[in-house]
Amino acid sequence: MRQKKFILPESEIPTQWFNIQAIMPNKPLPILNPATREPLKAEDLYPIFCEECANQELDQTHEWIDIPEPVREQYTYYRSTPLVRAYELEAALGTPAHIYFKNESVSPAGSHKLNSALAQAYYAKKQGITNITTETGAGQWGGALSYAAKKFGLECAVYMVKISYQQKPYRRSIMQTFGAAITPSPSMSTRAGKDIITKNPNDNGSLGCAISEAIELAVTTPNCKYTLGSVLNHVCLHQTVIGLEAEKQMAMAGEYPDIVIGCFGGGSNFCGISFPFMRHNIQDGKKTRFIAAEPAACPKLTKGKFEYDFGDEAGLTPLLPMYTLGHGFKPANIHAGGLRYHGAGVILSQLMKDGFMEAVDIKQTESFKAGVLFARTEGIIPAPESCHAIAATVREALKCKETGEAKTILFNLSGHGFVDMSAYDQYFEGNLQDFEISDEEIARFIKDADDLNK
Amino acid sequence: MRQKKFILPESEIPTQWFNIQAIMPNKPLPILNPATREPLKAEDLYPIFCEECANQELDQTHEWIDIPEPVREQYTYYRSTPLVRAYELEAALGTPAHIYFKNESVSPAGSHKLNSALAQAYYAKKQGITNITTETGAGQWGGALSYAAKKFGLECAVYMVKISYQQKPYRRSIMQTFGAAITPSPSMSTRAGKDIITKNPNDNGSLGCAISEAIELAVTTPNCKYTLGSVLNHVCLHQTVIGLEAEKQMAMAGEYPDIVIGCFGGGSNFCGISFPFMRHNIQDGKKTRFIAAEPAACPKLTKGKFEYDFGDEAGLTPLLPMYTLGHGFKPANIHAGGLRYHGAGVILSQLMKDGFMEAVDIKQTESFKAGVLFARTEGIIPAPESCHAIAATVREALKCKETGEAKTILFNLSGHGFVDMSAYDQYFEGNLQDFEISDEEIARFIKDADDLNK
Repeated sequence: MRQKKFILPESEIPTQWFNIQAIMPNKPLPILNPATREPLKAEDLYPIFCEECANQELDQTHEWIDIPEPVREQYTYYRSTPLVRAYELEAALGTPAHIYFKNESVSPAGSHKLNSALAQAYYAKKQGITNITTETGAGQWGGALSYAAKKFGLECAVYMVKISYQQKPYRRSIMQTFGAAITPSPSMSTRAGKDIITKNPNDNGSLGCAISEAIELAVTTPNCKYTLGSVLNHVCLHQTVIGLEAEKQMAMAGEYPDIVIGCFGGGSNFCGISFPFMRHNIQDGKKTRFIAAEPAACPKLTKGKFEYDFGDEAGLTPLLPMYTLGHGFKPANIHAGGLRYHGAGVILSQLMKDGFMEAVDIKQTESFKAGVLFARTEGIIPAPESCHAIAATVREALKCKETGEAKTILFNLSGHGFVDMSAYDQYFEGNLQDFEISDEEIARFIKDADDLNK
Repeated sequence: MRQKKFILPESEIPTQWFNIQAIMPNKPLPILNPATREPLKAEDLYPIFCEECANQELDQTHEWIDIPEPVREQYTYYRSTPLVRAYELEAALGTPAHIYFKNESVSPAGSHKLNSALAQAYYAKKQGITNITTETGAGQWGGALSYAAKKFGLECAVYMVKISYQQKPYRRSIMQTFGAAITPSPSMSTRAGKDIITKNPNDNGSLGCAISEAIELAVTTPNCKYTLGSVLNHVCLHQTVIGLEAEKQMAMAGEYPDIVIGCFGGGSNFCGISFPFMRHNIQDGKKTRFIAAEPAACPKLTKGKFEYDFGDEAGLTPLLPMYTLGHGFKPANIHAGGLRYHGAGVILSQLMKDGFMEAVDIKQTESFKAGVLFARTEGIIPAPESCHAIAATVREALKCKETGEAKTILFNLSGHGFVDMSAYDQYFEGNLQDFEISDEEIARFIKDADDLNK
């Protein structure tokens, strides 16, 4: 009988993360202090982040970084995640392509986010921190951090983007079940939130705003640090456990990917699956293609601009050199809440600029169509975010059908959609809106970032 | 590093199910035709069930039955399910007990139900059937059958207990995503449903009523068969894949269970985890205890009566010799919809009567308290049904704490609770009701069954 799943024994779960910064031909541009325009040092980040995370953020020298033993032990609760050959999806598409997916949906919080949440919570605990805070969009990251905080005995406060707070009540309940305190954002509990509500009482919230609120809470609360679920270098670092496992598992299957695909919000799951394979493009002359699948409603890679911008709406973060739509960008209320972010991670942006990867944008109807096909063939109902990666995979698989090429495609199934079923209802009812953003609108939002780069 | 999970390679997934009927010291009493009181033959069941299932239902001779290859291939999509050592639950309880659980929540439909759904759908397809129908309570079985039907190219119609249809909209969406047609029960689409609605327009429905509707649809629709997710012998047979895997996995962990626990509705997950171990009690002198955890609101094993009764509310099924609360029993609207059934499986009832197992009843507040503890320690949010098994496990583990005995406890985590989060909300809000049923009420319902046994 053909083998369906490839699973590593716990002893084979990676012991180190891979730091792509160390081998990049062009290092990322420095992160800047917005007041002085001086490059930031790790110490400058200590008021906001744990020291270990701040150090990792700027580490351009160590290619491999040890995974602390307590984090690795927690990884054994759900890792290795299965690498799965999507035989029935292939058959349904009639493609000669070999399609594999890495199933990160099996984690306690239902997505890849836990890979970094555990690391960040552990480093906080180790430093003697008692409280951590963060923002969450769709709730995947918030759920992961809530669980990780509980595991390491920390209090956890989550600012949840208001539209998601309303659309995804089950996500709230999950965070509550794991013991966290949840506040819809914008809220009246912070200066940043108050300012936004004052300007627009009906503001639906955004990741940019929720980040502002969480950072404000962290810097005004004793013994509290901020954590982030994507974008930043140390988050992408922690996520490389995905690709490192996948590399071993693909070898078990006797294959190596021609194409690697991930959905794209700030970059965490995409970087996680991609970077370990990309190192062989950089170091060993491999020619794998890497495709980021972003929503047409928030197309930072396909239609944004590479320049310095804030990571949050209120301008509390350092200036990051990245592809951005402008920090004031208001993405439409697509169901893939985790992809509603205006910028792309710093490392990723540099790699994109240097031609190591590509991006495609996908409308939500196409994404759900692909998601339903995947559910009916492979038996996993994907998160709306992950549906974007599946849609990009379907596109590539159908190209193979045309050309007759049996390419090997690997995509990251970042999470399951069990708590996003109302989005599927809308899809079946024909009530899903497809959002696109005009070049004029984009230009208007990017202007804010342009002004910062003068 | 201590090993957390025990997973079998796909080649080790069992190739046969275990049929406990073949080795029972006292065989189950015959199933009777309600009109003639004659024992039924397999052929008598053919109008309702696939022939293969009907034959398995009455098979008291073959101890091992081959799992068809196409079913086994579908099993590779999610099996083996992990056997997990619950180290952190043990630590939180301060118990010397070794607690293991079999994680059936990883299946496409989120519960053990798929083990039999795939078998029943396959046998239907093989027989040339085009349509299958069933009832579902919480929606676990309906979701599983919807998926299995899609996999084998069958149309699927599900009658969903009305209270669950309303309380669990995400379950409906899951079935829809897998391509099934869902009707809330009681409905006006059948004679049985009409009769119940006429008597009580606000009837919340019950499994007994939904079964009546599905059977009526099956017998009045060409090329359509009925399927059931629990209670029946062939369903319990298919579920033994759980315990057979667990037996191998416990051996990998170097242990053998002193106690095996499962929640109990009609018996499918309990039988699945128990029977393969129980055979060693029967054949090899092992002394494992088997504990069924049923809801206090529907205590058929602890407070019901062993006698002949109908399997459904309208009296369309054969007469089954079983522990029952009476086929007209109306269980309270607990969140564990899958446990709201008036009777226990025939095999199981005989084994209970003969002292091979025990039962405990658990109120829903205790069940959710245990479920939350489990979520926070082991990282899986359990289905309300599974919370009952966890609560019974906690009771036994705390007894070990008192006595200092390091017993080995194995329980079946029948499903996850991602689509039951509103129940957790109610628990946290302190709004969960605890239902108990008085002896007088029970006596009143059982009288219906008593009348059948005169």
